[in-house]
Amino acid sequence: MDRLVKVGIAGFGTVGTGVVSCLLDNGDIIASRTGIRPVVHRIADIDSARDGKLKISRETFVNDAMSIIDECDVIVELIGGTSFAKNLILEALKKGKPVVTANKALLAEHGKELFAAAEKSKADIYYEASVAGGIPIIKALREGFVGNKIERIYGILNGTCNFILSKMEKDRSDFDCVLDSAQRLGYAESDPSLDIDGTDTVHKAAILASLAYGEWFGIEPVYKEGIRGISFEDIRFAAEFGYKIKLLAIIKQQDDDVQIRVHPALIPEDSMLANVSDVYNAVQIKGHPVGETLFYGRGAGRDATASAVVADIVDVCLNLKFGSHRRVPAFKIGKQFRHIIPMNEVNSRYYLRIRVSDMPGVIASISSIIGSKNISISSIKQAEKEGEDSVSLTILTHLANERLLMESICEIEKLNCVKSKVILFRVEDI
Amino acid sequence: MDRLVKVGIAGFGTVGTGVVSCLLDNGDIIASRTGIRPVVHRIADIDSARDGKLKISRETFVNDAMSIIDECDVIVELIGGTSFAKNLILEALKKGKPVVTANKALLAEHGKELFAAAEKSKADIYYEASVAGGIPIIKALREGFVGNKIERIYGILNGTCNFILSKMEKDRSDFDCVLDSAQRLGYAESDPSLDIDGTDTVHKAAILASLAYGEWFGIEPVYKEGIRGISFEDIRFAAEFGYKIKLLAIIKQQDDDVQIRVHPALIPEDSMLANVSDVYNAVQIKGHPVGETLFYGRGAGRDATASAVVADIVDVCLNLKFGSHRRVPAFKIGKQFRHIIPMNEVNSRYYLRIRVSDMPGVIASISSIIGSKNISISSIKQAEKEGEDSVSLTILTHLANERLLMESICEIEKLNCVKSKVILFRVEDI
Repeated sequence: MDRLVKVGIAGFGTVGTGVVSCLLDNGDIIASRTGIRPVVHRIADIDSARDGKLKISRETFVNDAMSIIDECDVIVELIGGTSFAKNLILEALKKGKPVVTANKALLAEHGKELFAAAEKSKADIYYEASVAGGIPIIKALREGFVGNKIERIYGILNGTCNFILSKMEKDRSDFDCVLDSAQRLGYAESDPSLDIDGTDTVHKAAILASLAYGEWFGIEPVYKEGIRGISFEDIRFAAEFGYKIKLLAIIKQQDDDVQIRVHPALIPEDSMLANVSDVYNAVQIKGHPVGETLFYGRGAGRDATASAVVADIVDVCLNLKFGSHRRVPAFKIGKQFRHIIPMNEVNSRYYLRIRVSDMPGVIASISSIIGSKNISISSIKQAEKEGEDSVSLTILTHLANERLLMESICEIEKLNCVKSKVILFRVEDI
Repeated sequence: MDRLVKVGIAGFGTVGTGVVSCLLDNGDIIASRTGIRPVVHRIADIDSARDGKLKISRETFVNDAMSIIDECDVIVELIGGTSFAKNLILEALKKGKPVVTANKALLAEHGKELFAAAEKSKADIYYEASVAGGIPIIKALREGFVGNKIERIYGILNGTCNFILSKMEKDRSDFDCVLDSAQRLGYAESDPSLDIDGTDTVHKAAILASLAYGEWFGIEPVYKEGIRGISFEDIRFAAEFGYKIKLLAIIKQQDDDVQIRVHPALIPEDSMLANVSDVYNAVQIKGHPVGETLFYGRGAGRDATASAVVADIVDVCLNLKFGSHRRVPAFKIGKQFRHIIPMNEVNSRYYLRIRVSDMPGVIASISSIIGSKNISISSIKQAEKEGEDSVSLTILTHLANERLLMESICEIEKLNCVKSKVILFRVEDI
């Protein structure tokens, strides 16, 4: 006999309907694979009319999310936000009820508190859908790579940004114009700042870094830069050097320290990551002993997210069946590094674009400033004239210290021949 | 306190040393993440001198693998082959001892018997390393995608074949010459037939298909074709059409039936899979609701395989700790299809290369035969003269039935203007 488990869904928006629909459509398959049959017992939503076309009895719906805790075996938090959702989860955990959530903002900001509550009450909290949607990357890090020292993680973790950058490249368009069409297509929110300013990617990077290195970092130590500053011109120049520009989460062990940063980066155009287009996400993990690995899939949306939430529901149900709660703990401290490296101590390669006067001696002045900081130039290109009397000079550097590079930029911007602020992107030779 | 678990390693070859080395190097990390400390308690190998440079006490080594069963909590079978390894696993399971194995041949051929034994004694048998080495694809299928109906799996599952095909392309070389250098580099066995004739890929395809569709298929129903028949000429012609040639495992639900086949295939050169080069493996899974996903990594070798074996050891140890044996069963029957589609009923697109006389009417005769089978041609190219009086004609068809296509080839080969056997590869527009 399949074991019936009563699932309570809090929040019946896009992901909620996806989860319910998956449990209805694939309930038989899940039962045949695991002996578990998760049954949608309660759905709580402030808009009780949102039952859509799914075959759900009217009495399944309630308005008060708190009321489902006592009635269900597993609580699935799909409300979003960091206030009511947090209270709901804490209340469920306090009552010993296992929780599944897709709420990356909540975890990134309040993970420590939630995990402490889960530990206190010996209840599970699972969160596969919080990073990279349908890609089972949390399971891979916590279980599949449990025997690995994680050397490095690169992530394309925000579908909206990746869609915009892919479309800018494809349509040879600038940022504002593409954002506009992404909003019309529903690939970007009407207030897109959480995505395009990098905050969403920071939430996910913080979670991945925490699992990799055994400390719940939160979002504060993560360096953040979004994609508003990328123009088609830079995509075109990057291509001339053999690179594409992606918004990248970069998590690296460097000697005994660790760096965690989110910013646009030039990556080699023939790398697997550079070929991750449109709304797709990918996570590239290098571990010892596993070596280089990559996971690819849809990072958001009703269906992909539902796949991850349902996997968590089944994991929690199996733990209920076997009494193996917290078999794989939500998070365990086991710090594997000394310090988080501040951004100005990071070493990187750099792409610089400088608008300069078309006159003799310009390249000499700029390259001597860069050279004086002991930074060496790997490639330099001067484009054809753009305006009346200015041209674009693009420079790729070899590995350089961020602080020294910033100092050289300050000096370069003071030159009379330099006509506007220096455009800067970091280069990762993946 | 960490829970110490006594691990017995049977077989101390390449993978065995990798596993022991991983447990020694990363034991602290594993303990900090899980509370489990797997300790290498016994190593059995016929060559007891094989202790290498690892810090293992002399008394850990024994000659008799059977003797480690009683002394250890977890038995790791890394002997290979299908006779002694099978007896060892059955004996361990009979005594209720959980088993971890990387032995794809054994599982593909005798999985049913092993799983029945495991079920009888309520013991675990884990086998992540049997498919795609370091890529946690078994865990993804059984757990991460547990809520998904699997619509399709494409796999590049044999590193040797992928290395050879990548090198043929890169060096513009023919098969025999590249095989020779792969053998010298240690990327191909001295008897490479298990790899290059597709048998190893069939083993892995059978395991993936079984997990996807709920029946342990074994290797018998899997169509198999290796890579010996691929020449550089075909790689070059395929590139002209925009394709690369890869040895592909193809597993597809088609209406209510399923197809499982292993053969070289032309795949679009801009697809993620086409960019999987050298010894790397990749598995592309399309599921509902998750959509398209891809997993990439090293498919073999000491370190990548060790990563997967150690993950299994930890899973088994957690089950021992929580008494949750068979929490995720090794395999559960839950057949999701009606029939396995025989190869001659499969529909595919095809690439044909035909050496023909350089004379009028040749294209007309050949295309009329193809047309008479209701197969339509999507592209056709005639190359420059090769020999005295023959030229290569390459044809891409639209979707066609395999039996009808084979009939048309028989008729084509009977034409006077056709100078040798028709070269045929299937095309997958991934």
